[in-house]
Amino acid sequence: MTTFTINSDRLWGRLMALAEITRPDLPWTRRSFSPEFDRGRDWLRQEFESVGLDVSLDTAGNMIGRLPGSAQKNRPLMVGSHSDTVPSGGRFDGTLGVLAGLEAIQTLRENGVTLEHDIELVDFLAEEPSEFGLSCIGSKAMAGMLQDSDLDLQDGTGRTLREAMRSIGAVPEQLDQARRAENSNAAYLELHIEQATRLKSANVEIGVVTDIAAIRRDNVRVLGQTDHAGATPMGLRKDALVTASQMIALTEELTEQANEDGAAIVATIGRLELSPNAANAVPGVVEFTLESRSGDDDKLRAHTEGLLRRFEEIASARRQKVEIQPISCGTAVKSAGAVMQAIETATRDAGLSSMPLSSGAGHDAAYAARLGPAGMLFITCQDGRSHTPEEWVDQPECAEGAQVLMGAMLELDKL
Amino acid sequence: MTTFTINSDRLWGRLMALAEITRPDLPWTRRSFSPEFDRGRDWLRQEFESVGLDVSLDTAGNMIGRLPGSAQKNRPLMVGSHSDTVPSGGRFDGTLGVLAGLEAIQTLRENGVTLEHDIELVDFLAEEPSEFGLSCIGSKAMAGMLQDSDLDLQDGTGRTLREAMRSIGAVPEQLDQARRAENSNAAYLELHIEQATRLKSANVEIGVVTDIAAIRRDNVRVLGQTDHAGATPMGLRKDALVTASQMIALTEELTEQANEDGAAIVATIGRLELSPNAANAVPGVVEFTLESRSGDDDKLRAHTEGLLRRFEEIASARRQKVEIQPISCGTAVKSAGAVMQAIETATRDAGLSSMPLSSGAGHDAAYAARLGPAGMLFITCQDGRSHTPEEWVDQPECAEGAQVLMGAMLELDKL
Repeated sequence: MTTFTINSDRLWGRLMALAEITRPDLPWTRRSFSPEFDRGRDWLRQEFESVGLDVSLDTAGNMIGRLPGSAQKNRPLMVGSHSDTVPSGGRFDGTLGVLAGLEAIQTLRENGVTLEHDIELVDFLAEEPSEFGLSCIGSKAMAGMLQDSDLDLQDGTGRTLREAMRSIGAVPEQLDQARRAENSNAAYLELHIEQATRLKSANVEIGVVTDIAAIRRDNVRVLGQTDHAGATPMGLRKDALVTASQMIALTEELTEQANEDGAAIVATIGRLELSPNAANAVPGVVEFTLESRSGDDDKLRAHTEGLLRRFEEIASARRQKVEIQPISCGTAVKSAGAVMQAIETATRDAGLSSMPLSSGAGHDAAYAARLGPAGMLFITCQDGRSHTPEEWVDQPECAEGAQVLMGAMLELDKL
Repeated sequence: MTTFTINSDRLWGRLMALAEITRPDLPWTRRSFSPEFDRGRDWLRQEFESVGLDVSLDTAGNMIGRLPGSAQKNRPLMVGSHSDTVPSGGRFDGTLGVLAGLEAIQTLRENGVTLEHDIELVDFLAEEPSEFGLSCIGSKAMAGMLQDSDLDLQDGTGRTLREAMRSIGAVPEQLDQARRAENSNAAYLELHIEQATRLKSANVEIGVVTDIAAIRRDNVRVLGQTDHAGATPMGLRKDALVTASQMIALTEELTEQANEDGAAIVATIGRLELSPNAANAVPGVVEFTLESRSGDDDKLRAHTEGLLRRFEEIASARRQKVEIQPISCGTAVKSAGAVMQAIETATRDAGLSSMPLSSGAGHDAAYAARLGPAGMLFITCQDGRSHTPEEWVDQPECAEGAQVLMGAMLELDKL
């Protein structure tokens, strides 16, 4: 049982300092590959070095602070998260995991504790959906899952991901050097905000993540017919937006039903475009993304396929066509039992309560899990709000998270 | 009864020649204020002059070809339509009315017929919704309904309507000079394609327009809450797109019902934007335009207000807010009995059949009706398609329309 505590004010000071490195016109924004991101990394590197970490950038653009262990074990204990944000994001998503890891390491050092394992503190590159349509770029690369073809993806200005990665010091033609082998990690730990309200509702401080949901995305294109909105009577229309609307309303209805029946599934239409998108034109084409997530791969497949069949029925009943194109389909990642246990023990040691939680959001941990036992802990955030400037965590809760993270590191060092 | 016929090949040749003046990458596109529009007008001016018309541009940018009458009557017989198109529009919408008017005048001259009234052939400026969010700019100005504040409207590049009008030779600071008084026209006649399939279904050649529908537009803004699409369970969401989808589906359902109950009404959601519009975000805000149209002002008001009340109920039941902002609300314009009669007589004289039709689409005739007795005739277009490159009319039908237009001009000249 740990008898020393992390420095709450120091952690809080760093969180606020990194948050201030933002696009001034759009707080809190530190997009991957932006000037703010570079400045954030410069600041982070200094902080890492001030704690005695040996800082390097791998060829995939992950910034890694390394502290040698006492036992020269060759498998590091990895701790990490990310410093990039969504546009108009918050001050805790990602940065909390990196800075709480730094605070834990600094506290251990101040108390003369050297772990047996090497510690690697990682700021993964571009966890949030980037301008290249890709998320978790750094952790994917480390797991050997970033494709060469991904490097040719372009942002809105025509810049390739390859060029963007070079600009922050990565070496995209040597990605293999960043790749880690299966079981190369002793363990991976990531602290993150919950981005929901389940912990608060249960009056519990620490969420022990049991799994990271699989994410499936399908592109749905409804093909009606563009017509003049004045000259075309209701009965002669093939309005693609009305058809899409019936699909969207049904998605909510059936997904709520599935949850009442015990499946933990969410389904969202978050992106939608219509054409020609003019007030006086009956919409001829509507395209949207159906995103569904679950910790249960089988239920996810069954539910999504059921929805897509219903989409086809709706279109056909309305004399329209629908084209469905799979975009991506991941698999759910289970947390390692040993890591969950270490978090539970550390929570108890800190006098706090924990509960198991499934993570609907994707995280770098889902890729780090390919490198060895991995797990995550969540702390509450106000009203569950995240990816918005209103995202907020009180200082004591940040400190509790860092304290449990440090305790879990000590537990895992025993393995 | 006319014993001479218009020149079908000449009319067809002009229709095809004007159509070819298009953005080459996006046929058939001749947007108002674009280089193609200017080139179209240069070509039109030459054609007008070749028929002996005295061509001028009024201060509102309407191009007017004038032919003096024999009786020095001070109220002209006006014929017209427009030469601008929507993006990726067709080859007949607008141009048919201008070029059939020209063909009718040329045929009269070739047969030694001089009308008692002066004839004015008008290519009205910017009938289609322009980049400034305004349609029927020229005819509105002629009716004294273009506001000074409209001139400050900007397109996507920040150019004002005032600047755009100047660029095509209009004098926006002297709009009053383009304004015509009530009853300043002996009559106004406009030939147009039907943009629907009612004529074809009834196997009738000529539609005699009884009224031009009133158009009402309301901006509807649904305020839900943006949330993380992975972390937020279905039950905790305030998804603005699902709410909007229920409104859109209900709009079609209730408007179809209203038509079954005898009201001739259309209602369309053609424009919709959502925010943040990302696959992994629950949509927090959706904004769309509800456009409703009817030839019956009272039914239009009752139906639209009924829909908007139901929108409020839907939002409230889903713990969301809806903000409704009226954009515009016109009144239906009835055709003049004398003009309808002239078209019917000319149709009979040409050995064709006619039927009365309401126009759901707006036209310059709705504003010309402020200047004296006005009316329109429609000919069929293939499958009712319009505002699309597939818009099509066979040559014989164009000729029939021009023939009836000429006959109606002769009838109206007797008044």
